[in-house]
Amino acid sequence: MKSTLQNRQFRLIARPSGLPKRSDFDLVTTAIVAPGPGEVLVRVRYLSLDPAMRGWMNEGKSYIPPVGLGEVMRAGGVGSVVESNDPAVAVGATVVGLTGVQEYATVKAAEVTRVDPALAPLPRYLGALGMPGMTAYFGLLDICQPKEGETVVVSGAAGAVGALVGQIAKIKGCRVVGIAGGAEKCRYVTDELGFDAAIDYKGEDVRETLKRHAPKGVDVYFDNVGGEILDVVLSLLARRARVAICGAISQYNNLEGVEGPKNYLSLLVNSARMEGFVVFNYATRYGEGVRAMAAWLAEGRIKAREDVVDGLETFPETLLKLFKGENFGKLVLRVAGE
Amino acid sequence: MKSTLQNRQFRLIARPSGLPKRSDFDLVTTAIVAPGPGEVLVRVRYLSLDPAMRGWMNEGKSYIPPVGLGEVMRAGGVGSVVESNDPAVAVGATVVGLTGVQEYATVKAAEVTRVDPALAPLPRYLGALGMPGMTAYFGLLDICQPKEGETVVVSGAAGAVGALVGQIAKIKGCRVVGIAGGAEKCRYVTDELGFDAAIDYKGEDVRETLKRHAPKGVDVYFDNVGGEILDVVLSLLARRARVAICGAISQYNNLEGVEGPKNYLSLLVNSARMEGFVVFNYATRYGEGVRAMAAWLAEGRIKAREDVVDGLETFPETLLKLFKGENFGKLVLRVAGE
Repeated sequence: MKSTLQNRQFRLIARPSGLPKRSDFDLVTTAIVAPGPGEVLVRVRYLSLDPAMRGWMNEGKSYIPPVGLGEVMRAGGVGSVVESNDPAVAVGATVVGLTGVQEYATVKAAEVTRVDPALAPLPRYLGALGMPGMTAYFGLLDICQPKEGETVVVSGAAGAVGALVGQIAKIKGCRVVGIAGGAEKCRYVTDELGFDAAIDYKGEDVRETLKRHAPKGVDVYFDNVGGEILDVVLSLLARRARVAICGAISQYNNLEGVEGPKNYLSLLVNSARMEGFVVFNYATRYGEGVRAMAAWLAEGRIKAREDVVDGLETFPETLLKLFKGENFGKLVLRVAGE
Repeated sequence: MKSTLQNRQFRLIARPSGLPKRSDFDLVTTAIVAPGPGEVLVRVRYLSLDPAMRGWMNEGKSYIPPVGLGEVMRAGGVGSVVESNDPAVAVGATVVGLTGVQEYATVKAAEVTRVDPALAPLPRYLGALGMPGMTAYFGLLDICQPKEGETVVVSGAAGAVGALVGQIAKIKGCRVVGIAGGAEKCRYVTDELGFDAAIDYKGEDVRETLKRHAPKGVDVYFDNVGGEILDVVLSLLARRARVAICGAISQYNNLEGVEGPKNYLSLLVNSARMEGFVVFNYATRYGEGVRAMAAWLAEGRIKAREDVVDGLETFPETLLKLFKGENFGKLVLRVAGE
């Protein structure tokens, strides 16, 4: 197999200024690297495209090191083990892990997790049963600690994380208001996902509409977008509110630097809290999160939706769907199907 | 007494734009109001001048209602009961409470607290044993939860609250870095108060100096100033850092609105927390706070300093010392001495 198969991979060759573009990457055809001791060769089926990838392309200190120039672009993926040099993982197993944006990944067996392809479609392991699911589950429940009857607001409400945050908050007995771009996404979060209300930030005055939907103020805000929407929600916090900073997709491609929340003193007057987190903090508790999400999915209490786009070669353009707000549910790139 | 004594009081007559000025107030001579049932008449000795007063002058929702136009300017004070219409408080008692900026205050007996003038000089009941003391004690210990060996940074380090925060952090075994304006204040916090280091924001590059003094990052930041200094400290947070938002004196008189912390995403990458509070949240625990502060003062482990200015009539100008960074320790206005 090693001698005949070729691998195609996207390498990061320039640090993007603003939105990433095709010329920031090099699509390279290269020989597959045979797995060394303790390693496996994974044929990548689906890749997870995430807003966080934009941050990984920047230089500088963050919660994980940046992708080095010339290195394969980092990405989570799900695929099939086609060669194994570790007794713990058999050929044929389906695994998730950081495969990178490529067709074949040679990775440490200890760094992939086996999943059951019979229990859920593979893309779901990159969504509700993967990092977005864990982000929503732990970010909402651990950071925000929503209580029954409280008003929970989530931005990016039709996105991979936001859609799950709102549904988990409903399960916990909260009143849930989603903020999303466009009437179709808003209908989706109310009619399909069961949110109590949705605000179309492209077509409505967010502040006025949110005041109406949260007359007693916002107890919990799960922020995926930053920028103006964060500022508006801060201005409507209830006393002792909790704000989780999960992301700031409106700011990742800014050329002039991040816009700070001008209304941060609302934290002072409301004795409120704003807390950042990354899902990796909860690595030791993923089992708990996956079991909960899987049960809610099985019971039909949570609906998951993936937005699957075909073809490794479309990676740079497909990624942009995230920043243009064009994806609907978890954005996944199909590399090889099943 | 009612028939012969006159009261002088500062009433708020205009909402300040930027720094408060004399013409925002009216100094009125008026008859003393005799205490009704359950009330006492207090001869005010000292008034507390606080940055928070600036916020009370603004219209709009906050943690307490704004001072109404035409009303006596709100202020904490300490004084002597000269007439009592409540059996619980005797004439001659020394009390603290919200007396307002005036010579004689007619207040509810239930809303003043008796203090012992033999145990501490009266101005201290407006400082280390008053609201600034409680703010420092609960804000640091409850919101920031400093652990031994951690690096604690406090701004406004020579001010009423900051000086106490740093000293309490030292008692708790932390490494303490103060930020203050001018070499004299910096010498005070290191040489007199025992901080490990001080940064003169007027004369030093705060970021470079703080990097040197907090090589492993900032575990706790107690912010009294907001603005650029908040942004610099955010950029140097350690993982799991706690930031207490106590005030933002650099922003209170802004004409163009508050400057938001551009580096707030440091909360995300460091899984850090930023939390606002007001001292009134801890009203039921003031007893605990006062006992702790009094013990540390008695043991010489905490030093308190008051900056006493003479004369009720100087109120509008004396208040400005806070915003110009001219006060050294707790700013107090002497109205009638002891």
